[in-house]
Amino acid sequence: MGKKSSKKKSKDKGSQKATQKPSTTPFSDALRVGEGFRLSDVDTRATPAFVGDKVAGEEALAAADAEMDDLQERLFAHGRSGGTEKLLLVIQGLDTSGKGGIMRHVVGSVDPQGTEITAFKAPTKEELAHPFLWRIRKALPGPGMIGVFDRSHYEDVLIVRVHDLVEPAVWGRRYSTINEFEQGLVEDDTTVIKVMMHISKDEQGERLAERLDNPEKFWKYNPGDVDERMHWDDYMEAYQAIMDKTSTKSAPWFVVPADRKWYARLAVQQLLREHLRALDLQWPEADFDVEAEKKRLAETR
Amino acid sequence: MGKKSSKKKSKDKGSQKATQKPSTTPFSDALRVGEGFRLSDVDTRATPAFVGDKVAGEEALAAADAEMDDLQERLFAHGRSGGTEKLLLVIQGLDTSGKGGIMRHVVGSVDPQGTEITAFKAPTKEELAHPFLWRIRKALPGPGMIGVFDRSHYEDVLIVRVHDLVEPAVWGRRYSTINEFEQGLVEDDTTVIKVMMHISKDEQGERLAERLDNPEKFWKYNPGDVDERMHWDDYMEAYQAIMDKTSTKSAPWFVVPADRKWYARLAVQQLLREHLRALDLQWPEADFDVEAEKKRLAETR
Repeated sequence: MGKKSSKKKSKDKGSQKATQKPSTTPFSDALRVGEGFRLSDVDTRATPAFVGDKVAGEEALAAADAEMDDLQERLFAHGRSGGTEKLLLVIQGLDTSGKGGIMRHVVGSVDPQGTEITAFKAPTKEELAHPFLWRIRKALPGPGMIGVFDRSHYEDVLIVRVHDLVEPAVWGRRYSTINEFEQGLVEDDTTVIKVMMHISKDEQGERLAERLDNPEKFWKYNPGDVDERMHWDDYMEAYQAIMDKTSTKSAPWFVVPADRKWYARLAVQQLLREHLRALDLQWPEADFDVEAEKKRLAETR
Repeated sequence: MGKKSSKKKSKDKGSQKATQKPSTTPFSDALRVGEGFRLSDVDTRATPAFVGDKVAGEEALAAADAEMDDLQERLFAHGRSGGTEKLLLVIQGLDTSGKGGIMRHVVGSVDPQGTEITAFKAPTKEELAHPFLWRIRKALPGPGMIGVFDRSHYEDVLIVRVHDLVEPAVWGRRYSTINEFEQGLVEDDTTVIKVMMHISKDEQGERLAERLDNPEKFWKYNPGDVDERMHWDDYMEAYQAIMDKTSTKSAPWFVVPADRKWYARLAVQQLLREHLRALDLQWPEADFDVEAEKKRLAETR
């Protein structure tokens, strides 16, 4: 039921640089990764599909809350009534790119009963003893749910590739495995939204420095973050390969410029909104006799 | 670390009827179930520990958001830094008592990365093949987390008792099993907050009728709700037994009058706030050399 909105509009391929579009352009079109896309061409301070400043952006985010509630509840209601639709939001990005802010301010603004966040950390011994998609499959959303991955199976072609944690021939096969896996999700009525939170190296430097300047943020700092930062170019190359190989028609990538936190939050919210709207879900009909139930209820009062 | 605030203040035992206390009375004291407590004495429209109307109550709820964020983040930070504290909020109540509203408006107002909601439905075949606490143990919060149970192990002495799903000798033993189980949680640095959302039979009748009057709410209606409603007195008796047998010093019950949704939400939020405050958690210190890290970071810019 309901077509996925992830169909590529051919003229928007590689349109990341057109940042001053009127706000009537769907975020999905402005941010979708098409053929010829180059990560290095993206201005990480741009605000594609939105004209306005931080104040306007924060207002737009808040203004969409009511519709987000409604859309999420319709999805949830369908899941309770035999519907099979579900949504998977994959959030990828380097340290400090704002993944946590998306969880807090975008995912956190809808009913927590209808969302499931899974944060994928370094794999456990048990997880390493299984195929890389094993732990991913266990965390997939059920009918009516919005599943959110904070990092994902893409780490298996990111940190794993950058640090040679497995042989190149092994990670090299994973791109097509991932495409087949995601194709299966889409065929199982999952709307898949894959988001890369894209920050500049300068912006990451500033955000890490803030954590070291504020004792209330020490707990968020990990010396390993600087170690990873030293591999910046390798990570960019690994992300480019992901965009080249896994932005498919049924499960495309969206690259969100993330130097401005307010914009990145608005963009992810709007991607969710556009995809949920496209499902066009109506309230389920009663699967019981309404008048008979009214009578039964009246007899208990 | 941090004493639990659940210590009983003896003069407040059974104080549910004192609804016009000044707002300086902690909600924990006003709502805690002590010796001699009678469920039938509770006015389900009362607003213990709060003086004010709906507008004031909604304002008070919103006004506490920032402190709730801070308290939750401190708990989470401790969990990430070797701290063992965690919190378990158990929400019980008959159909339409507002459990979902608590999840949406109270739990949903803090960072979803630090909360885990588990909704316990009728047990599966696999769950039934295990001791009744098996599925409960699997859902317990880890360090730094706020676990929330929407229904819980108490269903095993509620619906199970009302419908004779097991022998009386079996459910009869469960009260002491539950007390031992919860004592173990407290010894494991879990703050346990058990809340009964207490509505009147009339209020339930109105809320069920609303669901039958509004096609957008049909999906929330289940003919089985009316079947359960016919056992109202049996449920009240089963809840009274729970209050008599399982409101312990280390894991007391709080009965929240729930005919006014705004009050029930405020009360649960304030119970959480008071218990989190009592933990008195400070920001974790750095487990790395701050100056050395600043230098390392500067070298990568």
